[in-house]
Amino acid sequence: MIGKINFNEKYSKFSDYWAPKVISEINNYQFKLVKIKGDFIWHTHEETDEAFIVIQGVMEIHLRTEIIKLNSGELYVVKKGVEHKPFAKKECQIMIIEPKNISNTGNKNNAMTSKNDIWI
Amino acid sequence: MIGKINFNEKYSKFSDYWAPKVISEINNYQFKLVKIKGDFIWHTHEETDEAFIVIQGVMEIHLRTEIIKLNSGELYVVKKGVEHKPFAKKECQIMIIEPKNISNTGNKNNAMTSKNDIWI
Repeated sequence: MIGKINFNEKYSKFSDYWAPKVISEINNYQFKLVKIKGDFIWHTHEETDEAFIVIQGVMEIHLRTEIIKLNSGELYVVKKGVEHKPFAKKECQIMIIEPKNISNTGNKNNAMTSKNDIWI
Repeated sequence: MIGKINFNEKYSKFSDYWAPKVISEINNYQFKLVKIKGDFIWHTHEETDEAFIVIQGVMEIHLRTEIIKLNSGELYVVKKGVEHKPFAKKECQIMIIEPKNISNTGNKNNAMTSKNDIWI
């Protein structure tokens, strides 16, 4: 039984970039907090849509056709199978919502690939 | 293809209480914005967990065993089958995340039951 979650309190507990931390679940979906800075890698999730919400800061989601610039209080859903590359000029705090067992680097496996189910 | 969603811009488009508006989807899950004020009814979702995020204001989620007080930037998940009653003393802006086709009044059907799939 998880109590209420305060985003700021959770963000204060970690400082690494591009390493999603699970904070809660609904059914087989997870809420993950991530601190991001700089360039991530181009990747695709062939099996699922993925929701990005900016909690604090500014991020970009680069698609092959356009760049989505997201500010605090904004949401964007990358549809299943759409190649994308997250980016943030300065540190940005985001929340990702997606099914369990989704790799952060999707169809790529490299040094930026994080372990799943790291709870904070 | 939905572009980016700005929560404040969406909230500016409606003023009715307890009437969820869909703003986006991931797979078979929906993001719904709701303005709430006063008492909702006790109800249960037998088929799913339900996530509440407060975007602005303060709300309470009354359970039979305790009262969860949620501020802006906080998340609480009501587990499947747990009876609950949302409440807000003053107008509060929240986001609900849950599967499609979930009735806002769960196992009850009354004047507070909203139609599903009202997009804004």
